[in-house]
Amino acid sequence: MNSPKSSQDSIIFGTRPIIEALKLGKEIDKILIQQGLLGEQVQEIKMLLKDSGTAIQYVPGQKLDSITRKNHQGVIAYIAPITYSRIENLLPELFERGVEPMVLVLDRVTDVRNFGAIVRTAECAGVHAIVIPQAGAARINEDAVKTSAGALFNIPICKEANLKYTIAFLQASGLQVVACTEKTKTEIYDIDLNRPTAILMGSEEDGISPALLKVADSLAAIPLAGKTGSLNVSVAAGVILYEALRQRKSA
Amino acid sequence: MNSPKSSQDSIIFGTRPIIEALKLGKEIDKILIQQGLLGEQVQEIKMLLKDSGTAIQYVPGQKLDSITRKNHQGVIAYIAPITYSRIENLLPELFERGVEPMVLVLDRVTDVRNFGAIVRTAECAGVHAIVIPQAGAARINEDAVKTSAGALFNIPICKEANLKYTIAFLQASGLQVVACTEKTKTEIYDIDLNRPTAILMGSEEDGISPALLKVADSLAAIPLAGKTGSLNVSVAAGVILYEALRQRKSA
Repeated sequence: MNSPKSSQDSIIFGTRPIIEALKLGKEIDKILIQQGLLGEQVQEIKMLLKDSGTAIQYVPGQKLDSITRKNHQGVIAYIAPITYSRIENLLPELFERGVEPMVLVLDRVTDVRNFGAIVRTAECAGVHAIVIPQAGAARINEDAVKTSAGALFNIPICKEANLKYTIAFLQASGLQVVACTEKTKTEIYDIDLNRPTAILMGSEEDGISPALLKVADSLAAIPLAGKTGSLNVSVAAGVILYEALRQRKSA
Repeated sequence: MNSPKSSQDSIIFGTRPIIEALKLGKEIDKILIQQGLLGEQVQEIKMLLKDSGTAIQYVPGQKLDSITRKNHQGVIAYIAPITYSRIENLLPELFERGVEPMVLVLDRVTDVRNFGAIVRTAECAGVHAIVIPQAGAARINEDAVKTSAGALFNIPICKEANLKYTIAFLQASGLQVVACTEKTKTEIYDIDLNRPTAILMGSEEDGISPALLKVADSLAAIPLAGKTGSLNVSVAAGVILYEALRQRKSA
């Protein structure tokens, strides 16, 4: 599974090492570039980062000096603590192993603590993979590892460029896509989760994007018996994932 | 139900007003007393606070001056944002209304954010009351209100001196006490939660105290399908409380 890295490993610096890391497909979580820095190699870094969704921060030189006293040449990168998986590779493996895949798709869950808590819960509930978007996901950093209680190292995380495309791929592979949302009267207990399934959870602020809601095979609500309008997203994930586990155990 | 107070209301100061508030049974969340302060009235305050489990902090005079410029006489008290209920009064009301009581007992859940999240979830899942101990519970402050998404104002909170005694009272009133713990092979799905029930959840660090585990009517585990050893306590509360709701809905 994903191999943990110590925090000493977690930064690289200097233009050439960073270009090489990017070309090797290393996962960069965040990159700091000195304000006003010019040059061919910096342009190359920016080009390599393009479309990756990696956060670039432009900072004063002193900020970089405070992180390392070595020759950083104006660029420091933080390596992600995990290596990402590809859902296209994972799904066939699961089917070959004879399991009914259970995939969790997170649409713009940006809070690092919520994300970490969801990863922990998903790993406990036997989820086979978590799909997050390249842009607009929580940063996967030491905090996320900590809140996940280390579960981030034990469950594959797939970072996909376009969730709508990924959902179409999951459906074409035989998974039903169940959107967990309050915008329906169908309850999670009324859905057969004992089939190859992807569960789609939305952001803390505005739930699942309309474009994704539209392509889901079914909508499922967690009943609310009180006056509060919604559950915290990490608790909601726990409730629906454990309903799936219950159905699968009783089948 | 509990009435919200604005944060302007949330402090009182001066020895006489605080003594009166305490005699009126107002809930003090925390009290700051100037270091080295002597006098009859301060002694009276300390005596009134005795056994209440209220946190007393001894601070320099400047600290108090920075909170209010008015004449605080060396003492500032923070009033709890809610008023507590008594489980002895609540239970008979529930039985009279013809509902099967569902009570949540929290044994030393001290993290304010976890506590707030559990309150939110419990209110969503239709829990009728939450019991916490007088000593060793999370502080009920503005942070707790915020993490609960306001649910703290919509669910009765009972602060009890001795949880063992309270559990005996719940049992004598006809409730089964179900301890949610990993220390059993019985799963939450195997327990009939469609009866008057109190669910007991333990602290983040060491679970439910042995003395309380011993008196519970049954132990129930949430299954763990992965490598992670436990769920976050607020997610665990969501999973078991929603299993109870599911059973009650399908009955």
